[in-house]
Amino acid sequence: MSRRAINFNAGPAALPLPALERARDELLDIGGTGMSILEHSHRGKTYEAVHDEALSLARSLLGVPDTHEVLLLQGGASQQFAMVPMNLMAGRRADYVLTGAWGEKAYAEARIVGETRLACSTKNEAGSYTRVPRAGEWSVDPQAAYVHITTNETIHGVQWHALPETGPVPLVCDASSDVLSRPIDVSRIGLLYAGAQKNLGPAGVVLVVVRKDLLARCPGSVPVIFRYATHAEHRSLYNTAPTFGIYLLRNVLAWVAAEGGAEGMARRNVRKAEALYGVIDEHAGFYRCPIERDSRSWMNVVFRLPDEKLEAQFIAQAREQADIVGLQGHRSVGGIRVSMYNAIEPAQVDVLVDFMRQFVRRHG
Amino acid sequence: MSRRAINFNAGPAALPLPALERARDELLDIGGTGMSILEHSHRGKTYEAVHDEALSLARSLLGVPDTHEVLLLQGGASQQFAMVPMNLMAGRRADYVLTGAWGEKAYAEARIVGETRLACSTKNEAGSYTRVPRAGEWSVDPQAAYVHITTNETIHGVQWHALPETGPVPLVCDASSDVLSRPIDVSRIGLLYAGAQKNLGPAGVVLVVVRKDLLARCPGSVPVIFRYATHAEHRSLYNTAPTFGIYLLRNVLAWVAAEGGAEGMARRNVRKAEALYGVIDEHAGFYRCPIERDSRSWMNVVFRLPDEKLEAQFIAQAREQADIVGLQGHRSVGGIRVSMYNAIEPAQVDVLVDFMRQFVRRHG
Repeated sequence: MSRRAINFNAGPAALPLPALERARDELLDIGGTGMSILEHSHRGKTYEAVHDEALSLARSLLGVPDTHEVLLLQGGASQQFAMVPMNLMAGRRADYVLTGAWGEKAYAEARIVGETRLACSTKNEAGSYTRVPRAGEWSVDPQAAYVHITTNETIHGVQWHALPETGPVPLVCDASSDVLSRPIDVSRIGLLYAGAQKNLGPAGVVLVVVRKDLLARCPGSVPVIFRYATHAEHRSLYNTAPTFGIYLLRNVLAWVAAEGGAEGMARRNVRKAEALYGVIDEHAGFYRCPIERDSRSWMNVVFRLPDEKLEAQFIAQAREQADIVGLQGHRSVGGIRVSMYNAIEPAQVDVLVDFMRQFVRRHG
Repeated sequence: MSRRAINFNAGPAALPLPALERARDELLDIGGTGMSILEHSHRGKTYEAVHDEALSLARSLLGVPDTHEVLLLQGGASQQFAMVPMNLMAGRRADYVLTGAWGEKAYAEARIVGETRLACSTKNEAGSYTRVPRAGEWSVDPQAAYVHITTNETIHGVQWHALPETGPVPLVCDASSDVLSRPIDVSRIGLLYAGAQKNLGPAGVVLVVVRKDLLARCPGSVPVIFRYATHAEHRSLYNTAPTFGIYLLRNVLAWVAAEGGAEGMARRNVRKAEALYGVIDEHAGFYRCPIERDSRSWMNVVFRLPDEKLEAQFIAQAREQADIVGLQGHRSVGGIRVSMYNAIEPAQVDVLVDFMRQFVRRHG
């Protein structure tokens, strides 16, 4: 077996090895057809079986009820920042709750499309985000078209650990970086979207789960390609699907199913989060996590060292001594970021934790 | 080596074997990094080198002058049907020339976005298309925002073999199915777009070449993600790129370069087209190509047999006797369609031609 780096990239990110091996083994010939999955028609039996399996695995693993559609689209979450208001505003104002940089981007795009309200922002005086809103800190406009939240902020490391109550107003979740990391109650969500490149597969595929009754909201002035209803009617095959991306997403979802589904992922992810936040808190004078305890992300753990020189040494030595990559914090915030999506093995986090203990002994 | 079917699929379609083998060989570990290209950050050195090579190969192989940008986007040509008018209409009317089903789709989407004019349609009384416009049959509105054509119609098998003169009005080309099949003069084109899944790589990537002065036309009411200028400013890395798709496109373009570039592809494609149209014309009483000679596509050769029963036998026997797949005409038109994009080897067309000679001897 080839060497595997310990890859804490924020996305595109580590993928489960069995999903990649399967792709490699059948890359030139899938199912004895004499053709790569990349060469099969999106309207042919071989690809359609993969497509249907991807959709049905997504539905079962996420626990999507019959009231909701599951779509596999292109353009990433950034395209959803525009498609959500184009499809769901229907002339009404939308509420946005900001807990980090991605929420800001979604909000900025929505403001171009229609009327919005900043329902809540937890940005602090230092210009950063360290928490989700506290109970009673904000309220939903009952006339709002929808309320948008970012369930996990990859740059700031802030995560909602319980979905907010929004009453009859549809809740829209950008769940790009924590989808399928644990069970959620999809029946409480109006629309969920997630770029695949963290927990679901490769970049270039985006998952959308949308309540069926919301599909009719889209005005006729929106191009057909940007209407969720178009893709729902055509089982996400209105136009040529990103076939290899969906194939690989299928491989990843099959791995998730084999590992116990959303519950299995939650067990892995809790274990990893406890180990990593554990070592940070154990050495709180050296490693400093700026995120309030209840908002700490299981997926993206951000922390600082006493100074930037030590941070640079930390990153370099982790690479040299333990083959660990991807620790650099986002350029906008600096520091260290450990992204540990579903594919990261608990044993890989243990290697990092051991390295952190050694590092603090040498430099603390 | 594994068996390779002779794959005449219309897209997604056959890919060059060396491009696939390269992907397979490094799927788990690219460049000794211990990671798949699928797991590398789109902001990291390993992927950025691939990305830059893909862009620069596209520029050199297509002969794109400095006056034009090269973009790699998502959403397929179908998304371009909307993005072109959103970016380029700027309150003016656009001219559309229809020579097949894809032009109809582009036109329908543009009519949702703004004002259009059907500058010309070659649809005949039977509701089909068999040619591009004749000289003098149509003219450009000199006030038009742009003129849109489909350089090759995959369903109808109709191809423009010379770009029309549009004077100062920018020419917009949907070149999804014949891009890079031969040299073209990009300086004469305002905007060219092409889904990758025929001549360039896998589904899920779309190439856009756009004249730089047209980027400023896009109104501020268009979401940032849908503006060509956004992607031009960010070297197609505004948001997470479909990294594996672009990686594979790079592999395909490297193969095109090794095979002599656009000129090399033209030589292959002429040879294939002459062989296939040759056998059709040789047995014109049995095989009937409905397309007028000057408009016959080099990429998608459509023809009929004396009846549908024979067509079904033709498709079944080609598969059984020669491992040939993908011959079924599009469901909207029926008959036989042979899609032979760049990756199809002349020797594979020779196998089909031999089969066609045998078939006519048995059934003619």
